[in-house]
Amino acid sequence: MWTYKTAVDWKSGKTGETRCEGKPTVEVATPPEFGGPENIWTPEDLLTSAVATCVMTSALFFFDRAGIRLNAYKSDATATMEKTPNGLAITGIRIDITVGIEDAAQEEAARKAVEQAEKSCPLSNSMTCPVTVELLFI
Amino acid sequence: MWTYKTAVDWKSGKTGETRCEGKPTVEVATPPEFGGPENIWTPEDLLTSAVATCVMTSALFFFDRAGIRLNAYKSDATATMEKTPNGLAITGIRIDITVGIEDAAQEEAARKAVEQAEKSCPLSNSMTCPVTVELLFI
Repeated sequence: MWTYKTAVDWKSGKTGETRCEGKPTVEVATPPEFGGPENIWTPEDLLTSAVATCVMTSALFFFDRAGIRLNAYKSDATATMEKTPNGLAITGIRIDITVGIEDAAQEEAARKAVEQAEKSCPLSNSMTCPVTVELLFI
Repeated sequence: MWTYKTAVDWKSGKTGETRCEGKPTVEVATPPEFGGPENIWTPEDLLTSAVATCVMTSALFFFDRAGIRLNAYKSDATATMEKTPNGLAITGIRIDITVGIEDAAQEEAARKAVEQAEKSCPLSNSMTCPVTVELLFI
């Protein structure tokens, strides 16, 4: 069992900050579409990044295990929030990944590693919505 | 329907960065217990903060609606990750909230606002695990 501890404190208006021991503080706010300011990380942004980061760190693990050396890994993630019978909820997260590998012969192995990453990512496993991954090679 | 877009790019080793247009870039990494470095935000940290921030921004909405003026709102959040039959997953998030309000007579209304926030928080609604909230007044 592992535990993760962070703090979230209100500052003023619809803004606050989140802290995690030893790590840079991040300013947070209500999204603009719900009355918050622009240009500050929102809960929905943080969740989207959390899941996309989990897929990346899981992929790094499976690339390592398969002996695949990376040149590049970039990803764009989009979360969709909708009204549901249970209230507002995230209804899907799509992650578009672009990967560059040193040995082009390992493309199929790399594809499998990303599939394994998506399946074993602890955060994908903790969401009620589907997390879909699209993979391109450069 | 609302959409939230972020990017996660690998930098080196088990580290990368996440970006959201117009917002400060945040360095991210695999957690130390899975071979990552210390002092960098992990996916699990980001998720914990995302849910705790969502509870706070939802609470701010319900405080406003009830005419409750805040002096302080602080929260400590702990997520638990465990092995489950479906692999590693977040199995619970506990949020300890401390609130200071201007008018002590509104304590019961403030308690109700926090309960509503927990229930209507879109991110709590999107997690497979329970999100529990404990509230203290200062």
